This record gives sequence, structure tokens and C-alpha cells, in this order.
Amino acid sequence: MAKRPLPLAEVYRLIEPGPVVLVSTMSGGRANIMTMSWHIMVDFEPPIIACVMSNRDYSFEALKKTRECVINVPTVELAKKVVGCGNTSGRVVDKFKKFGLTASAASSVRAPLIDECYASLECKVIDTKLVTQYGIFILEVVKAWIDPSNKHPRTIHHQGKGKFAVDGETIKLPSKMK
Amino acid sequence: MAKRPLPLAEVYRLIEPGPVVLVSTMSGGRANIMTMSWHIMVDFEPPIIACVMSNRDYSFEALKKTRECVINVPTVELAKKVVGCGNTSGRVVDKFKKFGLTASAASSVRAPLIDECYASLECKVIDTKLVTQYGIFILEVVKAWIDPSNKHPRTIHHQGKGKFAVDGETIKLPSKMK
Repeated sequence: MAKRPLPLAEVYRLIEPGPVVLVSTMSGGRANIMTMSWHIMVDFEPPIIACVMSNRDYSFEALKKTRECVINVPTVELAKKVVGCGNTSGRVVDKFKKFGLTASAASSVRAPLIDECYASLECKVIDTKLVTQYGIFILEVVKAWIDPSNKHPRTIHHQGKGKFAVDGETIKLPSKMK
Repeated sequence: MAKRPLPLAEVYRLIEPGPVVLVSTMSGGRANIMTMSWHIMVDFEPPIIACVMSNRDYSFEALKKTRECVINVPTVELAKKVVGCGNTSGRVVDKFKKFGLTASAASSVRAPLIDECYASLECKVIDTKLVTQYGIFILEVVKAWIDPSNKHPRTIHHQGKGKFAVDGETIKLPSKMK
């Protein structure tokens, strides 16, 4: 998928709506993927994101050790693979191979972009103070990519137990909000 | 709107999809409302939520001082009021009056429930260590309410500048995920 760079000031528009994302990491020569729903914007520019991982997640140790990841935003077409990644562990499975996803090189981190995803955000961990107590990692997005050909990406929002709300109509109201 | 209590273990299903919410506070005898998109689950049970507020927000001081708020989940029918609350400040406007919203008494906090919202989560601030650096408040949901008559609530997800994705179809995939 041919992606173009997305200005960092636009990153919040991808994360603020709360889509399920796929987090990719690279540790000990092994690339892995984790399905994640617990992430928010903390600041606009540079874009800062907070995410929550359990220390039972295989990706937790990779993120803690390498301090790098990529947050990839899938659309509804990838829903089955998203659930697949959420139901398997990188301890025992090569998820790129198992789910037919393509790792491509990032520009600023060793973790790979997931080619099939609509957008990818290269992130570095900038604060781990909150990891032990809450599993909260603070990330800075250092490079962002988006597929310019997808004009109406429909992301998915996890309502628990494999149930997802898919983006429906878009509404636009006059607003001074960023 | 007649709401019933929602078991606390179910709260993540409302927050995890990333809907825009209305945060109500009560400080110095004044009830206020803030439109918020930067909130995530941190733990399932008891339900812990992290939210980000700017110290320029009027609600920031109220939350810091009173350590209580209610997170109310509006549906698309309230979109205009949601944007209205985001474009005005409680410093100069009584938002309940201006936007025709109804404050009703909560059971465990002084901040009011917003009656027109589909669900309401009574929250207490349990950690302010992260407030100064990131504006991150850690909240515990102590009581939750939901409208049982709304079987298909369509929440809204902010994509920036007044543009919202409205929940469309719901899909359900076999999953071991919570």
C-alpha cells in the first residue's frame, strides 16, 4: 500500500476517534503485533499518545525494552485479522505469517509498519514512570504515514467480546474545536 | 430518562469504543459540562479511566479541586449540544441552561448526571500525580447508569474540527477477548 507522510499536527485526527489499532514491535529479531483499544491523545504537537498494556501481554516486554513501536490503524476489511491478533500470543505465533500481514520498514524505528493498515504511526516511548502502577506508556509519534487513496476509511471500535461498531455516516458541525 | 444501574464490570464496553463524552462537574455551587475525547480504560474492575484535560479548560480546576466528575455518554441525537458544550466556556455560560440539558442527582458524587445522555459514570479522582506534566487524571468509576430502553445507541467519534464518525453497523466476531 503506497502511503504518504502525514503531517504530525494531523495525527490526533486518527487517534481521537478511538479506533482499534494494531501495535507492532520488534524485539530480539522478532516482529510482533498486538491488538489494542486503550490509547488516547495526550497532546497535539508533537503528538503524544498514552497507551495501556498489561504486563501479561507479550508486547509489554518488547515495548519496555526497545522503547519503540508502530501504531497501525486498520479498517473494517481487516476485522478478522484484528481479532486474530487479539486472540493469539506472539510468544507462540508469528502473527505476520499466520494472518498474512506484511511488515515493511519504518523510517525512524525498528518496529515494522503493517502494510495493509490505512495509517501507521512510528512511536518512541518517552516516559515509563506510569508503567509499573498502571501499565501506561507515554509515546511520542515521530513519523506518520497514511494511505491517500482511501478517502472513506471505516475504522472499528471495540465494544467488548468481539463486538465492534463500524464507522457509519460522517457528520460535520460548525465548530471552533481543533 | 429512566436509567438502571450498570454493573461496574461492564463499564469498559462503553468507554473502550472511544465515543465523545460530556464530563460534568460541580464546583462552588456551579454545575458545568465539558466535551471530551481524550479518555481511556486503564483497568476493568474496578473500572479505572484515564482522561486528559488542559489546564486552560474551566473543568480542569473543578476536577482538581473537587476530585469528582460524571462521564456522560451522548448519542448522535445530542451532537449539536455536544459541539455547543465544546465551543463555550463554563466561565461565562451555564451550559445546562444554554443547551437545554437536565442535571439530575448522582448517588455517590456531587457532580450531576446529564439526564439526556445514554449512560453516566460517576467518577472519583484517585491519582493526580500526572496532572501537572500531562494533564492526565486517573479516575475510578464508583457507580454507573445506563438507559435500558436504548437498544442501539449510536455514539459519535470526533475526527477533528467538528467532524464525527457516527456508529454504523455492528459486527460480531468469535473472540476470546474481554
